[in-house]
Amino acid sequence: MTTTLRTAVVIGCGTTGTSVALALGFTGVRVTLIDDDPRALDEAVSLGAGTAWTPGLPPADLVVVATAPSAVVDVLHSAQSRGLGHVYTDTAGTKDIVCAEAELRGCDLKGYVPGHPLAGSDAPARDDTAAAGRFTGRPWVVCPFETTPDWALETVDALIEACGAYRIDLAAHVHDRIAAELSHGPHLIAAALATRFADSSEAFLKLAGNGLRDAVRSAGGDPWLWGDVLAHNAGPVADVLDRVSAQLTRAAAILREGDACAPLELAPTLEEGRRGQAALQRVAERRTLRDAPAGERM
Amino acid sequence: MTTTLRTAVVIGCGTTGTSVALALGFTGVRVTLIDDDPRALDEAVSLGAGTAWTPGLPPADLVVVATAPSAVVDVLHSAQSRGLGHVYTDTAGTKDIVCAEAELRGCDLKGYVPGHPLAGSDAPARDDTAAAGRFTGRPWVVCPFETTPDWALETVDALIEACGAYRIDLAAHVHDRIAAELSHGPHLIAAALATRFADSSEAFLKLAGNGLRDAVRSAGGDPWLWGDVLAHNAGPVADVLDRVSAQLTRAAAILREGDACAPLELAPTLEEGRRGQAALQRVAERRTLRDAPAGERM
Repeated sequence: MTTTLRTAVVIGCGTTGTSVALALGFTGVRVTLIDDDPRALDEAVSLGAGTAWTPGLPPADLVVVATAPSAVVDVLHSAQSRGLGHVYTDTAGTKDIVCAEAELRGCDLKGYVPGHPLAGSDAPARDDTAAAGRFTGRPWVVCPFETTPDWALETVDALIEACGAYRIDLAAHVHDRIAAELSHGPHLIAAALATRFADSSEAFLKLAGNGLRDAVRSAGGDPWLWGDVLAHNAGPVADVLDRVSAQLTRAAAILREGDACAPLELAPTLEEGRRGQAALQRVAERRTLRDAPAGERM
Repeated sequence: MTTTLRTAVVIGCGTTGTSVALALGFTGVRVTLIDDDPRALDEAVSLGAGTAWTPGLPPADLVVVATAPSAVVDVLHSAQSRGLGHVYTDTAGTKDIVCAEAELRGCDLKGYVPGHPLAGSDAPARDDTAAAGRFTGRPWVVCPFETTPDWALETVDALIEACGAYRIDLAAHVHDRIAAELSHGPHLIAAALATRFADSSEAFLKLAGNGLRDAVRSAGGDPWLWGDVLAHNAGPVADVLDRVSAQLTRAAAILREGDACAPLELAPTLEEGRRGQAALQRVAERRTLRDAPAGERM
């Protein structure tokens, strides 16, 4: 690894960028950091994620663009024009538009490997906390262009290894459909559900169980960043929302009919929902088992 | 407490009934158990929840009807006819129809206090596991009739105290609206979302984060029981589903328009959703703090 990845620039010191920088630093990579917001930069530096990038540094082995999707191509193009590094990747949660825009804009596609690390270890840390282990044991999607050379992929492989993640190659539009199903659609559903509680009394909210708190947890994400992600994956997300919306409308109609058949008519949704929940839980439990230190395995 | 509650019959040895029986037993109440399903009865007995009820026992101080909503009134009426106890309560998650049916059916309302213990401690136990602490530190809703005498309420107070819960009095229809907002509607939304994953490949599900697993957790409940609950609270649940459905349809339309304003137009939902999530989280954290042993408090 050390032959391909000794220096890196991380642009964007949010949760993802800072986590990647911390992981790189722990494996001995010299990391410099860039962020338009001096407070974000200072915080990442104070966490030990790296030192502030300064002009005149030689090109880094890798530049990680860790901004919101809508900013990736501007930042990438500018960084390539300034020769900040040899290989470039990004961490945006949408890939189809980002890839297409990078091509249209005339970015150097040979040196750019679109990527998306999937956060979410089973650690109890809050979703918005930067940590070197944020991507440990998790999939890291890369969407190489047909022309992407091996040397660029090798550098990104070293990044993924440093973060303890494992690589999954997907076509950009396939990634986006999957992300809409597993993350972007559910996020908006959680947000819609949670709006009801924004101005509720404590006396009312005290009657809520943990199921509801868990159900809306993902709605705690940054609204600006999520709006950007959703808009960048509009079609696939809209498909998910329309499908769930139709299911809810149908269930409401069954309930309003008010006849004795309602439980029977709701049964397929409830039964399939339980199977889906069980399937997700099984996969999560296998993951936990695999990630556990060897001594703790069953 | 011992003066009002020394003996109890628990009818229905599901998670709720068995949990209540265990809690009563721990405080010295002699509990006998009834269930049509001999396996459920055997399991509750083997957990130490009590002994099987036998004909000829003197009337108990309290009879707890812990069945699905649709069975409560039949079971209550039969138990009162047979003189199983002096005071009766139930644990069904819907109250308006149950109360109305009990009145219509000619149950003895003086001896019956409709109730609903809200499960969900912060313990990591699975939602379907019976435990004496299932209701510890949680609200226990009671919906007394205007004519409910103090002696009946005192016995139910002793039950609530034995379970470590605290009493909240609500009108039945108010309870049902609240339950629809905080539990029944969100349950169906989680189920609808989770249906998508019932037949998904493991390769696909491995890309899911914890947010999704948490979001659908409540969909793991018993489909038959939940169908019964939802049908018994049809109007209020349908209102919740229609509202969320409309929010999702609107968000999908914004996304399909595909203009640059999408993030701005989605911002109110995302921002309100974040505020709602934060409000629920705050209340849950206060609860955890309050429930913690004194030595562990901050």
